Amino acid sequence: MKLKNDPLLSRKTIRKYSDKEVSDADLNYILDAAIRTSTTGNMQVYSIIVTRESGMKARLAPAHFNQKMVTEAPVMLTFCADFNRFSKWCRLREAEPGYGNFLSFMTAAIDALLAAQTACIAAESKGMGICYLGTTTYMADKIIEILNLPRGVVPVTAITLGWPAEDTEQVDRLPVAAVVHNERYHDYDEAAIDLYYRGKESRDDSIRFIAENGKKTLAQVFTDVRYKKADNIHFSESFLEVLRKQGFMGQKEG
Amino acid sequence: MKLKNDPLLSRKTIRKYSDKEVSDADLNYILDAAIRTSTTGNMQVYSIIVTRESGMKARLAPAHFNQKMVTEAPVMLTFCADFNRFSKWCRLREAEPGYGNFLSFMTAAIDALLAAQTACIAAESKGMGICYLGTTTYMADKIIEILNLPRGVVPVTAITLGWPAEDTEQVDRLPVAAVVHNERYHDYDEAAIDLYYRGKESRDDSIRFIAENGKKTLAQVFTDVRYKKADNIHFSESFLEVLRKQGFMGQKEG
Repeated sequence: MKLKNDPLLSRKTIRKYSDKEVSDADLNYILDAAIRTSTTGNMQVYSIIVTRESGMKARLAPAHFNQKMVTEAPVMLTFCADFNRFSKWCRLREAEPGYGNFLSFMTAAIDALLAAQTACIAAESKGMGICYLGTTTYMADKIIEILNLPRGVVPVTAITLGWPAEDTEQVDRLPVAAVVHNERYHDYDEAAIDLYYRGKESRDDSIRFIAENGKKTLAQVFTDVRYKKADNIHFSESFLEVLRKQGFMGQKEG
Repeated sequence: MKLKNDPLLSRKTIRKYSDKEVSDADLNYILDAAIRTSTTGNMQVYSIIVTRESGMKARLAPAHFNQKMVTEAPVMLTFCADFNRFSKWCRLREAEPGYGNFLSFMTAAIDALLAAQTACIAAESKGMGICYLGTTTYMADKIIEILNLPRGVVPVTAITLGWPAEDTEQVDRLPVAAVVHNERYHDYDEAAIDLYYRGKESRDDSIRFIAENGKKTLAQVFTDVRYKKADNIHFSESFLEVLRKQGFMGQKEG
């Protein structure tokens, strides 16, 4: 079937990796593809940190809530918003950089995230598997310390990378119509929410998930267990503090 | 040559599009691919607004500094961080969402940006061309108004999309070694900056660019003309105001 052969449509997140190494050639291909990604004004205001040493993986693991993939994957890539390199270049060329502000952080974060996704697709196109680590923004301060990131550099996402050692089912998604709006945003009424979330809510794994967590609805598993308000508030403060510390919230002085 | 046949390595931004329409089948393929992109906790906290009507393109054009691609491309896609849909679902399922904070904005922006890049690669894999519109974060308030985006929804990037009507040269990039760090960030000394930027600075188009703008160095074209401190500070304030208005800066109440 056509769909099954298209890696963009058949992809799955991979959390278990075989012992097979990611060769230098494979890694170089992924990085070569990543740097062809669009970047604002061709400034390339991001950096990629490659982790292959087991000692570094062990140090990074707690910053990623000790998710097993971090120590088990052959390669980890951390994608950082980076105005340090560009600003250093400016200063060495009689130009005064003005990138110590929130807009510039967003610009650099966008560069980093688009490059990250190209890296993932490049890896998947060769049969490798990836898993994103959402913990990167939660624990950015620890990651900065471990990876030695200077002012002007903030990690925004990370992935583990390797050859798959599991063959899981593709996870469910909302229908495309739930996510896509034609011409204008059409806000969701109760009937639309019911329609779009019905498939997800009726899945066996969702029902099991609710029971395991002692909740009444799947939504409660998200709000009360997985993505809690108190945690979000805590990590919001720590990420904003990271932006201040790394020099991206100087709106007054730029 | 192998490299030339790999769309990830040979890609170029396309700003001029032919009259050929982007068919529904092509657009659906792009959107189907985009929604298979990794998303935090499978929450899919983003939305994609499709613009094909010429009236809507004309309204959006000023928000994108009247860049010609906006009115000339057959399709424009605006990618938005969106916790509105998810939070509505929670409220209808006896769950209290806690996503009105900066961390949740970052989570949703990451979802939107990764999906955007998959859409671009899907389009390019079929021979179409894309151009990112960095203006999206600058003028988010206007885009919110035009696209009717409710509280909880913030545009983070947009692309124009169509069949190429130009065959430009691939732009230069810094050497991969300039962007990639092994194990730890190795900060740049003057020799490293000179080495990595030498290629870019010696290009004919860079030299012409400096002359056209009456500057002494290429870096000055960026700091004094293209990405100015005063503009960055102005757009930082307006984007932070958008985050407040759309309900993403309620750290205290979450």
